[in-house]
Amino acid sequence: MTGQAPLADFPVSEFEARTEAVQRLMREQGLDALFCTTDAEMRYFTGFRTLFWQSPTRPWFLVLPADGAPMVVIPEIGAALMRRTWVRDIRTWASPHPDDDGVSLLADALRPFPVVGMPMGRESALRMPLVDFNRMRAACPGLELRDASALIQRLREVKSPAEIEKLAEICAIGSRAFGAAGRLFHEDQTLAEAFRAFKIELLQQGADDVPYLVGGAGPGGYADVISPPDGQRLAKGDVLLLDTGATLDGYFCDFDRNFGIGQVSDTAQRAHRTLFAAVEAALRVTRPGARCSDLFQAMSGVIEGAGYGGGDVGRFGHGLGLQLTEAPSLTRFDQTELRAGMVLTLEPGLEISAGKTLVHEENIVIEEDGVRLLTERTPPELPVI
Amino acid sequence: MTGQAPLADFPVSEFEARTEAVQRLMREQGLDALFCTTDAEMRYFTGFRTLFWQSPTRPWFLVLPADGAPMVVIPEIGAALMRRTWVRDIRTWASPHPDDDGVSLLADALRPFPVVGMPMGRESALRMPLVDFNRMRAACPGLELRDASALIQRLREVKSPAEIEKLAEICAIGSRAFGAAGRLFHEDQTLAEAFRAFKIELLQQGADDVPYLVGGAGPGGYADVISPPDGQRLAKGDVLLLDTGATLDGYFCDFDRNFGIGQVSDTAQRAHRTLFAAVEAALRVTRPGARCSDLFQAMSGVIEGAGYGGGDVGRFGHGLGLQLTEAPSLTRFDQTELRAGMVLTLEPGLEISAGKTLVHEENIVIEEDGVRLLTERTPPELPVI
Repeated sequence: MTGQAPLADFPVSEFEARTEAVQRLMREQGLDALFCTTDAEMRYFTGFRTLFWQSPTRPWFLVLPADGAPMVVIPEIGAALMRRTWVRDIRTWASPHPDDDGVSLLADALRPFPVVGMPMGRESALRMPLVDFNRMRAACPGLELRDASALIQRLREVKSPAEIEKLAEICAIGSRAFGAAGRLFHEDQTLAEAFRAFKIELLQQGADDVPYLVGGAGPGGYADVISPPDGQRLAKGDVLLLDTGATLDGYFCDFDRNFGIGQVSDTAQRAHRTLFAAVEAALRVTRPGARCSDLFQAMSGVIEGAGYGGGDVGRFGHGLGLQLTEAPSLTRFDQTELRAGMVLTLEPGLEISAGKTLVHEENIVIEEDGVRLLTERTPPELPVI
Repeated sequence: MTGQAPLADFPVSEFEARTEAVQRLMREQGLDALFCTTDAEMRYFTGFRTLFWQSPTRPWFLVLPADGAPMVVIPEIGAALMRRTWVRDIRTWASPHPDDDGVSLLADALRPFPVVGMPMGRESALRMPLVDFNRMRAACPGLELRDASALIQRLREVKSPAEIEKLAEICAIGSRAFGAAGRLFHEDQTLAEAFRAFKIELLQQGADDVPYLVGGAGPGGYADVISPPDGQRLAKGDVLLLDTGATLDGYFCDFDRNFGIGQVSDTAQRAHRTLFAAVEAALRVTRPGARCSDLFQAMSGVIEGAGYGGGDVGRFGHGLGLQLTEAPSLTRFDQTELRAGMVLTLEPGLEISAGKTLVHEENIVIEEDGVRLLTERTPPELPVI
């Protein structure tokens, strides 16, 4: 009817492979179905990609049986787009609805399955009203819900060659944009102007969107790494940090670069060299079979060896893909074993002085025989512009 | 210590006024505290604005007592930024944590309050792991949780003069960007290229970010209104739709424009004039005391009177502010009374032919004596470029 072409992010075989892989894990763990409410899971299993998740009004439900094809229970406004994916079982209602915003349809979809897994653990959220979640539970009295966060995370951690290709491309786009820093940033520019110029550069270099750009600037470091830009003007001797998550077909890069404005202090240079060395140390131990905690230890060893505290960000990197940050986490306690196909960020940070930090980040993919950088490596010396 | 300036989106008096207003409502409803987990509520009451919510790893908690100052329970990585807000009670932990990601701290913060409201109804989500939510509940055995969605929505619906100023400015930025359409869009351009050019224009016109841009193109309408762009090339006679949610200091515009490529069919022109007339009809009845359903009826009367079906989007507009879409909804059933200070979208749609729609959207603010357009009104005739 609509004549619209299928969504072209991936061939159908990609989604079939993801579905078969998760169904194998579900059967091993005795789950009859998966139930998901969030953008990333919907996108991963169906290919349904839209910025419309920005609107909190309508819930979107995925029900994936351990045997058979996925079904979705979604507002009618998304039906045309969903028909461009590989999903054929599309159940819709006119939303918003005065008193039943998809709950009955969802309960009908879940009722055949006694044991259902859903993401309930680390990094998960429930993207539907709690009141409606409880109504659904009341409408499915026999339903046993189990946490499937780890199951889905372990699956999503290993990227397919097609996913790695997209991640490599968005990292290359980010690297080219950072390569233009000398043209984009200058003394006396406000942070707001610098951020705007960089977002435009990312788009011109081929990014679809720039959902994430944070940073800061100050003499010898910055106070935090998640601030929006303001009217602060870049001054000689400042270290400017930009940390970007730009996307291509919904896949993220996530890395940062530091630049000295006009000049840079020896203190900041020494800190930057330390972070560079920390990443080098992590790269030396990164291979299939190494653990996340090994990478953390490699980085924190260099940082502590140089006499710095590590700051309070809680980790030195993480998974990367459909989301800006994904499992696993490079922490002292995360024992996840690296597997070929994982895409990670290496993101050591240190406290350069009281209340001031310096961070640095690269993106990598784990390969059978080691590791490959997806980002163009920063030079060890903090570049001055 | 950090020397960073306070976040300058609003003066502290703005947050004090919001807090006093919500506390008055809480006392009326017998709530001892509010508990929120989501970006919009955190931003509304504290001013904590960051794109870092893109990362799903860490939860962020706001606890607002019915008497006294707000407190936050947040990961240490956000402490420096939070210290730039008016919030003084900041409780932090190093996150991610191996087995207690803020749950004990949160339970300690909530335990003094017997009856706590949280958003659990329409348009809400729980942005923390369900497992941790249940742990918190187990750690607060006497806690009674009640749905506070409507309370918060009713408060947020009416914008302050400072908020309206930001919304007017981002709408003006959007209008200027659409004003450049003749320079940005052309036959044979791919949708991806057209979208990219428009995002860059929005940034150049002064938008901070473009979290939302969807649209479509086709002869005599488009199949859906939430699709991402692809390699489809604009052809003579296509109607191109761009629907944008750009932001300024975290406040959204949300409106769309239609453009004919080279020429436009009489069918599309008639549909566009009908949508224009539907908005005019809504504007005539829009004033304090009118109901959302009145605006819906005014628009659907024009559309049905012209012989069209209304399509399946479920509503003809919505609230606008900190989020792309907010309460209320312009539906047949939403009886919310309009109050001065509300900012809304008017967004009628119609089915132009089987499987093809046309939509049109403007942004307005309700004033004591009527209504003011925040967007530069589209012309009644579908503009051709």
